[in-house]
Amino acid sequence: MESGMMEYLEQLGEKAVAAKYALQRLTTEDKNRGLEAAAAALVRQTERILAANGQDYQTAQAGGMSEAMLDRLKLTPERIGAMAEGLRQIAALPDPVGEVMERFDRPNGLHIDKVRVPMGVIGIIYEARPNVTADAFGLCFKAGSAVILKGGSDAARSNGAITQIIREALSGAGITPDAVQLIEDNDRAVTTAFMKLKQYVDLLIPRGGAGLIRAVVENSTIPVIETGTGNCHIYVDEDADLDRAIPIILNAKTQRIGVCNACESLLVHEKIAERFLPALGEALQKKHVQVRGDETVRRLIPDAVAASEEDYGTEYLDYIVSMKTVGSVEEAVEHINRYNTRHSDAILTENKEHAEQFLQGVDAACVYVNASTRFTDGFEFGFGAEIGISTQKLHARGPMGLRELTTYKYLIRGDGQIRA
Amino acid sequence: MESGMMEYLEQLGEKAVAAKYALQRLTTEDKNRGLEAAAAALVRQTERILAANGQDYQTAQAGGMSEAMLDRLKLTPERIGAMAEGLRQIAALPDPVGEVMERFDRPNGLHIDKVRVPMGVIGIIYEARPNVTADAFGLCFKAGSAVILKGGSDAARSNGAITQIIREALSGAGITPDAVQLIEDNDRAVTTAFMKLKQYVDLLIPRGGAGLIRAVVENSTIPVIETGTGNCHIYVDEDADLDRAIPIILNAKTQRIGVCNACESLLVHEKIAERFLPALGEALQKKHVQVRGDETVRRLIPDAVAASEEDYGTEYLDYIVSMKTVGSVEEAVEHINRYNTRHSDAILTENKEHAEQFLQGVDAACVYVNASTRFTDGFEFGFGAEIGISTQKLHARGPMGLRELTTYKYLIRGDGQIRA
Repeated sequence: MESGMMEYLEQLGEKAVAAKYALQRLTTEDKNRGLEAAAAALVRQTERILAANGQDYQTAQAGGMSEAMLDRLKLTPERIGAMAEGLRQIAALPDPVGEVMERFDRPNGLHIDKVRVPMGVIGIIYEARPNVTADAFGLCFKAGSAVILKGGSDAARSNGAITQIIREALSGAGITPDAVQLIEDNDRAVTTAFMKLKQYVDLLIPRGGAGLIRAVVENSTIPVIETGTGNCHIYVDEDADLDRAIPIILNAKTQRIGVCNACESLLVHEKIAERFLPALGEALQKKHVQVRGDETVRRLIPDAVAASEEDYGTEYLDYIVSMKTVGSVEEAVEHINRYNTRHSDAILTENKEHAEQFLQGVDAACVYVNASTRFTDGFEFGFGAEIGISTQKLHARGPMGLRELTTYKYLIRGDGQIRA
Repeated sequence: MESGMMEYLEQLGEKAVAAKYALQRLTTEDKNRGLEAAAAALVRQTERILAANGQDYQTAQAGGMSEAMLDRLKLTPERIGAMAEGLRQIAALPDPVGEVMERFDRPNGLHIDKVRVPMGVIGIIYEARPNVTADAFGLCFKAGSAVILKGGSDAARSNGAITQIIREALSGAGITPDAVQLIEDNDRAVTTAFMKLKQYVDLLIPRGGAGLIRAVVENSTIPVIETGTGNCHIYVDEDADLDRAIPIILNAKTQRIGVCNACESLLVHEKIAERFLPALGEALQKKHVQVRGDETVRRLIPDAVAASEEDYGTEYLDYIVSMKTVGSVEEAVEHINRYNTRHSDAILTENKEHAEQFLQGVDAACVYVNASTRFTDGFEFGFGAEIGISTQKLHARGPMGLRELTTYKYLIRGDGQIRA
């Protein structure tokens, strides 16, 4: 059994490596043709996808899956259309592969080019939503890499149908179908073994909750990019424009609740607490957001409950916000650096010095002045797409677009140079 | 014991985190002053270092350490002078921190700066040579990061003295001494626990042999950059300038035997085997290099022994080279991609098409045309220094200088933007 499992994974690995070399030889036009073919096939075979998704949905419903999760799982003709449209948008993006990032000559006559090249084989482990299947394929493929996908078992049949349709479309376009492979064995041991396929896989990206990401970090021997946990803060400075503050906070907290760039914690300068907190409390209450705060917060916002130490470290993804009063920008920065997840944090202030202090001091992928944290997003940054938001410091930080899915190599041209 | 060990490591971690924030506030001048002070102190306290090193040396000698290893361990006034000079050279390099890497405006009026910032806390695990202690400190410090060092136990007293002298010098310059800390507990369990200090350490770099690197990759939960294993190839094409080929091969193989960018394996096009191999064999024999080759190689180089499959995957770091004849550039590329360590590989050819095919096809950090693989080096690339040669694809590939020891963050300035 164990050896059968490894054999299965190694076969996937071998095929991905063969595909990786084939993909490196494709032109931009080849890749765009593959993406268009896959997009057309997904739309053409909507019924096949819906049938598979219907089975997943029934099983999940019978198993007592929550409404919110069922909604994530469910596909409709519109959602399938959106998947196809996503692939077409990726086709329209510039190809990052081949870009000469730097070029320099050495005194000994060596010419050195630093050139952007594909990563090779990328592994992606994700949870419920089946649209990630098409999306992850599209981004990795355009970036010139083969991808091995491991989706959530709840969406196994949906993911299987989507993958199979894309593979058929690639074959039809004269491109190796092994550009995308799905791990179809849903045993948890297989996922753990996948995380150790270092000889085949160059990069592993977990997309999902904190538990999944922790499991990948602890088990993987493949280099990992952590994505998507966001305990994002907004600090309302003593010099904030308070009229503008509430719309920004409401946007960051409530425009979309379950996303990693939503605001989870508010810090408010104590000098403006009396003036600002009652109005803020009222605005949050209208949006049904529960406030968990310190003593000052509870005094000024009647419905607020006490915040524990744990609250300040929690990414709620819910109609809850933690709140704390602080005495200075330094104290805000210190609190944020203790509790944030290195994702996105904002200061609201009209004071340029405070803004700079915050920008320099906060350790996060994205640090904002006078804007909602919700802008941490590949589309909002103009990258045209994203595979996720990196919360680690190695390789890529913040929104990861096509460029962030590539690596580079040095090409060195000489005429007989030897080292003295 | 176990909890005492964790407490010890957590204390180091807490101190490093405090130092990281302090270092981020230093100016370039502050950092250069710290480096100069450390350099001066190392020279001034040469006797103290030599005394500690003498103890390490005696213990190692009594324990039967090989001559080559003893030589690596041994410090002399000249070697201490070179360490100090290394720190002064780092002071003279441009500061990578604060560089605006990109700047773009969004249609909604957000101004986005992508700015180079320090990594934070860097961990370095290394083996015998005590000069790495000063070197690793200098690079991490100039790049704005605190460093926690774990050196080889054989050099424990030498490393302790060097670290202590640098810490005293930093204190004297008004800079936190916790910019550099040494793990002084040489229990192997401590090193393994160190690899899991993810909440404190942002990046872990192993510097040493394949065994050390494997242990770090398998145990670390901190993001790792693998460095320094080099099974480097030279492929002599049918269209090579054979007169120029031998000096390049001898340089790559024998100019310095024990380094990661030395050549370990030669591929020769079968069409030139008859003409080229006898002369090559003679030249290698003069340098006392043993040849392990395939049948054709053994027929044309009388002293050659048979190469096993394992030979082609071996980084000898010795006067041995594996050798194989191939029928085409493709076959050479395929062989290299199967056996190389993604470090450095070269083609010798006058045929531009073959050169391009090789440059594009070989999966390595550095791919050469008509030059020795020995140039894969931070100094030779003009980076002014290096912490190692990365053989992985994430973050940095090839020689890692100061820039490669940094990360970036996005600073986003708005005036009330919210997401629609």
